[in-house]
Amino acid sequence: MTYNTFGHLFRFTSWGESHGEAIGCVVDGVPSLIPLSEDDIQPWLDKRKPAQSKFTTQRKEGDKVKILSGVFEGRTTGAPISLIIYNEDQKSKDYDDIKDKFRPGHADYTYWMKYGLRDYRGGGRSSARETALRVAAGAIARKILAGITIHGYMTQMGDDEINESAFNLQEIENNPFWCPDKEAASRWATKLEAIRKSGSSVGAVIEVIAENVPVVLGAPTYKKLDADLAAAMMSINAVKGVEIGDGFATAAMCGEANADCMRMKNGEVTFSTNHAGGILGGISTGQPLVVRFVVKPTSSILAPVETVDAFGHDTTISTKGRHDPCVGIRAVPVGEAMMACVLADHLLMHRAQQGGL
Amino acid sequence: MTYNTFGHLFRFTSWGESHGEAIGCVVDGVPSLIPLSEDDIQPWLDKRKPAQSKFTTQRKEGDKVKILSGVFEGRTTGAPISLIIYNEDQKSKDYDDIKDKFRPGHADYTYWMKYGLRDYRGGGRSSARETALRVAAGAIARKILAGITIHGYMTQMGDDEINESAFNLQEIENNPFWCPDKEAASRWATKLEAIRKSGSSVGAVIEVIAENVPVVLGAPTYKKLDADLAAAMMSINAVKGVEIGDGFATAAMCGEANADCMRMKNGEVTFSTNHAGGILGGISTGQPLVVRFVVKPTSSILAPVETVDAFGHDTTISTKGRHDPCVGIRAVPVGEAMMACVLADHLLMHRAQQGGL
Amino acid sequence: MTYNTFGHLFRFTSWGESHGEAIGCVVDGVPSLIPLSEDDIQPWLDKRKPAQSKFTTQRKEGDKVKILSGVFEGRTTGAPISLIIYNEDQKSKDYDDIKDKFRPGHADYTYWMKYGLRDYRGGGRSSARETALRVAAGAIARKILAGITIHGYMTQMGDDEINESAFNLQEIENNPFWCPDKEAASRWATKLEAIRKSGSSVGAVIEVIAENVPVVLGAPTYKKLDADLAAAMMSINAVKGVEIGDGFATAAMCGEANADCMRMKNGEVTFSTNHAGGILGGISTGQPLVVRFVVKPTSSILAPVETVDAFGHDTTISTKGRHDPCVGIRAVPVGEAMMACVLADHLLMHRAQQGGL
Amino acid sequence: MTYNTFGHLFRFTSWGESHGEAIGCVVDGVPSLIPLSEDDIQPWLDKRKPAQSKFTTQRKEGDKVKILSGVFEGRTTGAPISLIIYNEDQKSKDYDDIKDKFRPGHADYTYWMKYGLRDYRGGGRSSARETALRVAAGAIARKILAGITIHGYMTQMGDDEINESAFNLQEIENNPFWCPDKEAASRWATKLEAIRKSGSSVGAVIEVIAENVPVVLGAPTYKKLDADLAAAMMSINAVKGVEIGDGFATAAMCGEANADCMRMKNGEVTFSTNHAGGILGGISTGQPLVVRFVVKPTSSILAPVETVDAFGHDTTISTKGRHDPCVGIRAVPVGEAMMACVLADHLLMHRAQQGGL
Repeated sequence: MTYNTFGHLFRFTSWGESHGEAIGCVVDGVPSLIPLSEDDIQPWLDKRKPAQSKFTTQRKEGDKVKILSGVFEGRTTGAPISLIIYNEDQKSKDYDDIKDKFRPGHADYTYWMKYGLRDYRGGGRSSARETALRVAAGAIARKILAGITIHGYMTQMGDDEINESAFNLQEIENNPFWCPDKEAASRWATKLEAIRKSGSSVGAVIEVIAENVPVVLGAPTYKKLDADLAAAMMSINAVKGVEIGDGFATAAMCGEANADCMRMKNGEVTFSTNHAGGILGGISTGQPLVVRFVVKPTSSILAPVETVDAFGHDTTISTKGRHDPCVGIRAVPVGEAMMACVLADHLLMHRAQQGGL
Repeated sequence: MTYNTFGHLFRFTSWGESHGEAIGCVVDGVPSLIPLSEDDIQPWLDKRKPAQSKFTTQRKEGDKVKILSGVFEGRTTGAPISLIIYNEDQKSKDYDDIKDKFRPGHADYTYWMKYGLRDYRGGGRSSARETALRVAAGAIARKILAGITIHGYMTQMGDDEINESAFNLQEIENNPFWCPDKEAASRWATKLEAIRKSGSSVGAVIEVIAENVPVVLGAPTYKKLDADLAAAMMSINAVKGVEIGDGFATAAMCGEANADCMRMKNGEVTFSTNHAGGILGGISTGQPLVVRFVVKPTSSILAPVETVDAFGHDTTISTKGRHDPCVGIRAVPVGEAMMACVLADHLLMHRAQQGGL
Repeated sequence: MTYNTFGHLFRFTSWGESHGEAIGCVVDGVPSLIPLSEDDIQPWLDKRKPAQSKFTTQRKEGDKVKILSGVFEGRTTGAPISLIIYNEDQKSKDYDDIKDKFRPGHADYTYWMKYGLRDYRGGGRSSARETALRVAAGAIARKILAGITIHGYMTQMGDDEINESAFNLQEIENNPFWCPDKEAASRWATKLEAIRKSGSSVGAVIEVIAENVPVVLGAPTYKKLDADLAAAMMSINAVKGVEIGDGFATAAMCGEANADCMRMKNGEVTFSTNHAGGILGGISTGQPLVVRFVVKPTSSILAPVETVDAFGHDTTISTKGRHDPCVGIRAVPVGEAMMACVLADHLLMHRAQQGGL
Repeated sequence: MTYNTFGHLFRFTSWGESHGEAIGCVVDGVPSLIPLSEDDIQPWLDKRKPAQSKFTTQRKEGDKVKILSGVFEGRTTGAPISLIIYNEDQKSKDYDDIKDKFRPGHADYTYWMKYGLRDYRGGGRSSARETALRVAAGAIARKILAGITIHGYMTQMGDDEINESAFNLQEIENNPFWCPDKEAASRWATKLEAIRKSGSSVGAVIEVIAENVPVVLGAPTYKKLDADLAAAMMSINAVKGVEIGDGFATAAMCGEANADCMRMKNGEVTFSTNHAGGILGGISTGQPLVVRFVVKPTSSILAPVETVDAFGHDTTISTKGRHDPCVGIRAVPVGEAMMACVLADHLLMHRAQQGGL
């Protein structure tokens, strides 16, 4: 039982605070002989990096990752892989005004109550900065998942959903929202610019899809693939809900409408539909894995909000300066990374019990 | 890493198949000196038991639990508590017609592919029968959670939601759906009777709420209370989505609407609203914990569905005889139990690191 | 973290007290499709069973094991395997005289202090009866270890060691001490008979050897094969020391004497000696694995021993009736079983990370 | 299950190779509000540091530890504590001559077989350099163990044991061997100087004792305090045996001689002797905890030893230059640290289940 370790066999242990000297993680359980260098990890971090458009926080972080162990002459050795990212842009801000105040929607109050102190500088351990390490670990996980492709994208910003008929995976890289619907991306740009200028914020829904997943990943009962995916996504900052396949929409369905019929085609089992999102009984079916999660609107807003301070006094708080008007944007690469980590973990778990793969 | 163990410190390991001789679980980590007998567990099992109304499967199970270890002279000893429930009504049915067919929406196909065989009798390990053990373990968890109350109820059946203004916790025990809205319960009875008679099925949404939870349960990053709750609920059979507090609705909210303001009242921190569902930064706030999950419509329906068999042939399948038209009904006590187990686990985890409680 | 679970991937969780209704364990992580029935387990239990000679406790236990789950049509399903052994001969004894006294050398005092109560009937959870479950789990582990042979035997009883030159593995089954030296066995019979009659007891050293172990089992640092073996053996009741290969004798050696030289023979790496006991850097070398452990003399003796009671009074205690004059005898099959469990666990662990096997 | 993590609740995950840029560890589960700085850790590292006398390797390592996370304004925050030590003196040596040869007694051969490659520079991950991190983690563990004192010392070098009657804990710091017997230390200096000059090596026995341990640490069956201690010590490089209390000597004892009688004294339970080494039934008795382990002679010796290379050829190997003639010396602080880590872990485990402490 470790508080800061994710995964069962493919595991990473993360450490570090938003405004400490560095953050890092130790990835353990990685098979040996896998070619690995910083160049395999950095591109994924660059995708998550803040300040890539005006729609994310303007904090400038180089987020340069360095491998400190576990790789020898370009290949993994089977030893733990230590990754470190030095913090750069953490000194400028004065935190005196929030030092003793609990920001509503943040972890300030609960950390204070649980630990009796908190590193108030940029959220400390509760900062979304920690998700950079998930992305880094996910990059290593992807090396184990040769042949499996993972894509994350935003399907809803505020109350504005994409049009399914306009879905185009190619569009994802063409706009700052990882939006697969060109027109929606255009609408979102206008809306979010207004939100950003007003100092407000908005929520979002992200979908992550994995293709070419072998049929056997997962397990019954408490190591269900969907249970692990739910925990993985829910553990990302600001996430308030997770669903698999048709998710909450299945409540309103009858059994006939929800059935994914099966047919043999060229000697292979095929499914007519994918309401199940690629998982049955906790185990992957070979269909695309479909996971969706919601990211609440950023709690740091310009409008003054009523709160209390550490001395038991009523007060108000207002967040000025750089912030993310839609923190869901930066959650997209994080969701992809968590999907990769869960799949790599289950691949090793399957191999342990059943061999093969 | 154990496939069939739930929890970190308060842990239970379950075993058994739907049509084996018995099912059971081993609950470990329970503090000593807690008064415990079968009478503390049986009432919760009776709530989950099938065939209590015409709306659940007519399989008759006494579901009599027996404590085999860990209790001495009426109190827990700190040793593992072994619980066993003998199966009773498992012999009558002939499974020859589904023995080699993969029922769509069930775990038949994935178990077959992963393990190379499957116990086809009533679903074997994938049967919802396993959830009886979660309820039993949950009953023990509740003994650790003195003062905390947990209630589960159904908020939506099919496309019919309860009316929030008619919400009345007292109503829950008055209808077979654990429905807190008297009129909705009446509507559901009519609808579900028709669905049952037609051999169809329908999905549902269940909400579980815990009150009087201390402020400090949970942890940052990968042992977030919400992440563990998400995994717990998603691990229940047929669950396809989980949300905390306002959940997916937060996507459409702006930061101002989502803020739970804080104010001192009689020397205590209070919150104006509970959009967060009682968790901030992965740690409980002291507000009611609110978790919601969706249960898909039962896959076993009368209408013939296209599928394939273990020999690679196309075929169809149709489920006659007893089944649950809305399996969500029986998921209510299971959701409550998983909430109890997660809270007991986090109570021990908090005590380990920070003492107190 | 579970108090009553052994192993990482091949895991078993045991439960039950000496004088409860039954004892049992749940074995998880077992690959599917392995032929398994009670007949694979019972012979190993029969070896451990008390009352097989006058040199072990005369408590009569049928120790009939029953498989309750995880096996279907004669083969493992990949689901947890629940084993149960009903207690039989537990009612006769009156424990009133030791109920409130702490027997020196037993767990009475520490259990009382830790848990605030204790099941005094036959030692409760601290009874060596629990080791029957290790033997049962070990029988399943052996099924995973096809080709690996494991033998345990006693090399020292009291101060009387076997003569290495008389070592003969065939002799093990010919005497009640699992002694590989015929003459030593004969001496021991005489000596132990005297000890038994006088109500005294004596310690023993047991060696367990595994052959045909593949080269790659184990891992660096904290999952070293020898570290796991040390924990496994030390967790057996009454064990006070564990050594690998030449063990404590290496203290007096110089590097030259301790070197296991390597040479190619018919294209295979061979070793001139096996001082290392088959493990280097925490990983198996392919040589025989050699583990030795010491079992202290049974604490229950006829001679009155000074002690205190639960009320803080000085008193004395004396154990009449059936007991084991050399509890080391019955530890032999237990040591074998623990070796099997550790090897099966590491086989799955290796497969998870590196594939193959 | 993590290969490179030690402990259950007080856990540390170590990483790094002997000749990489740095080594480090992440300590998780530490309670908040504990005053902590590098000054609490550095003195323990300085004790272990090589080149402090002519009797340890002359490799110069500053071994300056740096805290990168988990401490804020001088106190622990409850977040993971990341420690890093930059390697300094790792560039000078040419490893070409051992690059493809398997050094007998080292992990070269087994790493090669398991992982298909090895970091040959100074042993890579198998280097005793990794033990610096154990010492660092142990320093943090000690902060949790207020009131408990831990002392390690050497009781035997080669075949030369200390004289028990000359035992004096004060002497430990007065000689380079942590020897509590002044005369033995003097003899050892002469002997080891000869061994060092001849390029040979010798084994040693180390004892670690913990005092003021509360009565309740540990647990029955698989989390026995002695089982965890055995694993902890056996996981240290070059350790081949572990014993508790009288250890292997109990084999030759009768029950009467091995009994630790109990008596009330001033309202407290006292023991006449401590043959058990402070543990009964896996739980601490409150007496001094006594653990002993053996360190084999350093495998790197000047005399040429027969071995094979990675290409399947016979060859010989001889280690010139700096090395440890008795690696047991540097194992003393490591043994102390592992004792501290195990105790801190069990303190948290006890608190989780039973509260208090």
